[in-house]
Amino acid sequence: MAKIIEPGAVAKAYRDQIRQQLATIKTPLKLVGFLASDAGPSHTYAEYTRAGCDDVGIHFELRELNRLELEGAIEQANADTGVHGILVYYPIFDTGHDSYIKDLVDPRKDIEGLNTYWVRKLYHNVRFLNGRRKAILPCTPLAIVKLLDEAGGFARGTKEPLAGKKVAIFNRSEVVGRPLATMLANDGAEVYSFDVDGLIIYRKDELEETELTRSDVLGKVDVVITGVPSREFPLVRAEELKEGVIAINFSTIRNFHDDVTEVASAFIPRVGPMTVTMALRNTLRLYRNFHAQDADPDLPQGTYP
Amino acid sequence: MAKIIEPGAVAKAYRDQIRQQLATIKTPLKLVGFLASDAGPSHTYAEYTRAGCDDVGIHFELRELNRLELEGAIEQANADTGVHGILVYYPIFDTGHDSYIKDLVDPRKDIEGLNTYWVRKLYHNVRFLNGRRKAILPCTPLAIVKLLDEAGGFARGTKEPLAGKKVAIFNRSEVVGRPLATMLANDGAEVYSFDVDGLIIYRKDELEETELTRSDVLGKVDVVITGVPSREFPLVRAEELKEGVIAINFSTIRNFHDDVTEVASAFIPRVGPMTVTMALRNTLRLYRNFHAQDADPDLPQGTYP
Repeated sequence: MAKIIEPGAVAKAYRDQIRQQLATIKTPLKLVGFLASDAGPSHTYAEYTRAGCDDVGIHFELRELNRLELEGAIEQANADTGVHGILVYYPIFDTGHDSYIKDLVDPRKDIEGLNTYWVRKLYHNVRFLNGRRKAILPCTPLAIVKLLDEAGGFARGTKEPLAGKKVAIFNRSEVVGRPLATMLANDGAEVYSFDVDGLIIYRKDELEETELTRSDVLGKVDVVITGVPSREFPLVRAEELKEGVIAINFSTIRNFHDDVTEVASAFIPRVGPMTVTMALRNTLRLYRNFHAQDADPDLPQGTYP
Repeated sequence: MAKIIEPGAVAKAYRDQIRQQLATIKTPLKLVGFLASDAGPSHTYAEYTRAGCDDVGIHFELRELNRLELEGAIEQANADTGVHGILVYYPIFDTGHDSYIKDLVDPRKDIEGLNTYWVRKLYHNVRFLNGRRKAILPCTPLAIVKLLDEAGGFARGTKEPLAGKKVAIFNRSEVVGRPLATMLANDGAEVYSFDVDGLIIYRKDELEETELTRSDVLGKVDVVITGVPSREFPLVRAEELKEGVIAINFSTIRNFHDDVTEVASAFIPRVGPMTVTMALRNTLRLYRNFHAQDADPDLPQGTYP
């Protein structure tokens, strides 16, 4: 029977660490959240952010505003030296306009790592700025990587902790599935990325489109990660999987049949609490990289508003 | 009865100008097009690009490739000093991945003005780099502005050639409708931007969401511009419009009823040939701004791949 891993328990250890490190910093860190839409679970995420900030000792300020005021408000927060991190709750327009807004957030305050500045680092496997300061990674993919490490005992110290491992991911969104596939491939895994548009295999420095199907792949993988927000997705069942597989669900709708726990070595039913924790961790990291007194900003000045 | 303006005729004057200016340049300009998808009318647009390049004397090279090879190919073209302009035929993935690809194109070679570097200039109404070199604007919105000038006799020399004018646009896509609304508002117009998500009024430095409807607005506007690729869109009819209106259709499906020509002063049934011409014009502009011997590149070096 699978070990059930609750992300809240894993998150706690990370939060303890963040709290301790914040205690050594004199400046109270301030994170500003922008809520400009009623769409989706944005309110809930904002509440969780506040609870997480309260827990570790970051000052959280939620700014609710009309979506047409958002761009100006982001630019104001970019310029405000009293703001150390910015978090925008998407979707807002739910069109390409949202991509534009992601790029308005100064990368030095972009705790979600969504600005193209950070996204490009991720896809080019550039993990450090100037070889020293760690790059920012997007919160949900990062949360999944950390939970996977926990479930599989993968050692982070090594260069390719997932060498030889096969992973299936059902989701290739820009926010989670695609960056996650790249991050796991950069860690040495062979990643089978499924979405409605077909199957792409991610390997380090190589992508391959293939005609392979779910049934060709699922019985061979060591890890299955799902994020399909549709009840039409056929649930992943025990009979499709190999013994000892690690199963991770980050969809709001559970994509695994209950019987999966009979064959899996570990089952992670949700990711949310770790996502918020990684957002807090990124806030601390950005502060150290760019805002602390001894910080040495590596970003070209003036390139971003 | 409306004057029917064929964009090909307007385009011809611009192409003559481009051809003359190219004749004064010793370097043969090279434009590379990337075709990485069968989707949409990309092949047709590529053929029109080739014909346009042949017409004015730009060397056009179409590179057909698998979409998974596209990112590497763009980076190679970015680095190739023999390439002066890059054009990517979208959609490719038709997800946020396409936004990422737009940002991979070096702004100095981005003849479509789709990189966030240029998009931000547009939305901030920054028309010049360092006060001298003109910024790049996206091809279809720019084509529409030029056709509108032709139809309405609006003088480009003045600061706000559209002051006092009201314009309705049915389309708020990131590629055409939204930048176009901003550009016309920057030129002094009051712009009513309709899409399925509602009506937003664009004025210079001000946006307003409103409950006004199509029937509240259409009878008052001086210009109607449509780009709705759906047969479910109720055609714009003469009875909805005021006498002397300028009507411009850039959708592949005509969004105006035939009777519109009875009230309009000018009707522009399509925009395509001007779009290609503006792409050629941007190629020349980028060459002069960044690649010519006497160019003084204003972009921060090393920020883009």
